[in-house]
Amino acid sequence: MSDTTARPDLLSWTCPAPVRDRPRVVMGHGGGGAMSAELIEQIVLPGLGGPVQAALTDSAVVELGGARLAFSTDSFVVRPLFFPGGSIGDLAVNGTVNDLAMSGARAAYLSCGLILEEGIELDTVSRVAEALGAAARAAGVRVVTGDTKVVEAGHGDGVYINTSGIGLIPAGVDLRPERVTPGDVVMVSGAIGVHGVAIMSERENLRFEVEIESDCAALGGLVDAMLSVTSDLHVLRDPTRGGLAASLNEIAAASGCGVVVQERAVPVPQPVAGACAMLGLDPMYVANEGKLVAFVPREHADAVLAAMKAHPLGSEAAVIGETVTDHPGMVVARTGLGGTRVVDMPMGEQLPRIC
Amino acid sequence: MSDTTARPDLLSWTCPAPVRDRPRVVMGHGGGGAMSAELIEQIVLPGLGGPVQAALTDSAVVELGGARLAFSTDSFVVRPLFFPGGSIGDLAVNGTVNDLAMSGARAAYLSCGLILEEGIELDTVSRVAEALGAAARAAGVRVVTGDTKVVEAGHGDGVYINTSGIGLIPAGVDLRPERVTPGDVVMVSGAIGVHGVAIMSERENLRFEVEIESDCAALGGLVDAMLSVTSDLHVLRDPTRGGLAASLNEIAAASGCGVVVQERAVPVPQPVAGACAMLGLDPMYVANEGKLVAFVPREHADAVLAAMKAHPLGSEAAVIGETVTDHPGMVVARTGLGGTRVVDMPMGEQLPRIC
Repeated sequence: MSDTTARPDLLSWTCPAPVRDRPRVVMGHGGGGAMSAELIEQIVLPGLGGPVQAALTDSAVVELGGARLAFSTDSFVVRPLFFPGGSIGDLAVNGTVNDLAMSGARAAYLSCGLILEEGIELDTVSRVAEALGAAARAAGVRVVTGDTKVVEAGHGDGVYINTSGIGLIPAGVDLRPERVTPGDVVMVSGAIGVHGVAIMSERENLRFEVEIESDCAALGGLVDAMLSVTSDLHVLRDPTRGGLAASLNEIAAASGCGVVVQERAVPVPQPVAGACAMLGLDPMYVANEGKLVAFVPREHADAVLAAMKAHPLGSEAAVIGETVTDHPGMVVARTGLGGTRVVDMPMGEQLPRIC
Repeated sequence: MSDTTARPDLLSWTCPAPVRDRPRVVMGHGGGGAMSAELIEQIVLPGLGGPVQAALTDSAVVELGGARLAFSTDSFVVRPLFFPGGSIGDLAVNGTVNDLAMSGARAAYLSCGLILEEGIELDTVSRVAEALGAAARAAGVRVVTGDTKVVEAGHGDGVYINTSGIGLIPAGVDLRPERVTPGDVVMVSGAIGVHGVAIMSERENLRFEVEIESDCAALGGLVDAMLSVTSDLHVLRDPTRGGLAASLNEIAAASGCGVVVQERAVPVPQPVAGACAMLGLDPMYVANEGKLVAFVPREHADAVLAAMKAHPLGSEAAVIGETVTDHPGMVVARTGLGGTRVVDMPMGEQLPRIC
């Protein structure tokens, strides 16, 4: 879908930019790419230190009272608050529900922490709450505890939301990148790049022939459908900030496998491809909020793909590649022209405050 | 400790100020008093609507996988980030640990969501993370999942933190205000008003003869000690925003009991009393971050008080009053002069961004 060598505007991502050379936080530290990882690994985790859990992943698997739970948190700072196909309220529910689903857990309970900026209209708060409630009902999750803080005008941006969530992980389900082995089949649940382009077009007031709406959706039901085929999926990931490229790179790095993607097999809607070309974006790096990527043992791949296609949120599911023993930890795309290119981990942010 | 009629600067709290007359969010909506309650009850909960849980309390009690869990969330927007006796990192751990402890649960796992403002020094982020880690180790809780977002300069204030937490509630423990009955003994675990005054003096660069340090602490161990006497405590509350007055009013309203406080029995350190007099504050309304108020059946009161006093965080514990059948839902203080006054629910904020 893209060729980095033909996109000089993207080259800055691939420059090394270690945290030690940046004494202050920059927007790129929130982009979900290499700079975010550096911030976490070089600043936050060493600070936390000691017996605090080493890996602050999006969703933790913990034992409590004999139950195996997934526990996840996300803060939402998207701008604007409302955009085609969704709102910060939808993102706040679906983002955390999806993080839990990627551990195989069906979200049961959510918390909701609001940081309101002095001066925001109560009507806006009300609309955000309505969106949250509707999204929670659609996802079958209950918002059970909350908190509201207010900060002075000029120290917020209307509404920031944190949601955290907990859910039960079914017996036999063990989804993590370390389980990925060469020969796994890589599939996505549908078209990529839609959310980021929807946000960008709203923010920049761009109009395309076809309005592009965010794909924001709760993936718990789709994951249930996939797990009903086999509990032996290897890893699931929802490619949000940093897009599909970041998710594939994280999994490649953690598993030690190489990943080969057939670029032409990656579903990108024509309007998204057109918008990306115009904006100088690569769909592989654009955030999604209602899609997942799955690494599946080859013997289950056909059945899992069929289960995805039978679900409304997976009707455009597609196999996009496989894992290999070559180039361990690296993601390579086979281009339509028969060549190959490395799909790097993004460095900073392509579109800030996308979620 | 105070007399509202002699404090004209406090009278504005008691003016009715329904949300419907305020089309925009004001700082008072974050104060933990009546305006916060109105925002939640009139805007947030109706928005969430439907089958979403009706009461967004600080800590929810939920069932999951056969375990009875407490689940809580809090966002922290305190200014300044570091203050005498603590920091936003300490508050972020202890605040959520304490919310869980007020349900009788020992905190097991925390999440940590950071919202960083572009331009903040990485060294500051590092110091906050170190404070978080040290507080988590002191409280015996593990930070297991996290998220980091970055917002543009001018849309944050250095660091905002959300923590959410989960913990197991022991069998037989059922702490909620509805269990309070007339004749319950009301006790506090120590001196009140300290945290708010510590923040205020740092923020306003006030110097007193004795430096006043925040009481910020994790109360899980103290609650364990109390529950080891009897699981039949009726309700616990940590009086943060809105202070002891807000906690007592919430419990009075939810239980339908009257609460009588012996004003002279409420422990207020002399430096705090002096600072409050100077600043025009009432210690009953000032936030605490390492204290609890307990409503205990009379037959267990002596033993519970002794257990508190034997714990380092309860050495100054004191009985401050009782519940009565008179003036249901109302809190009344017996003053040192033999009179009585109503201790109202605070309306808005006395000290904004205290936690």
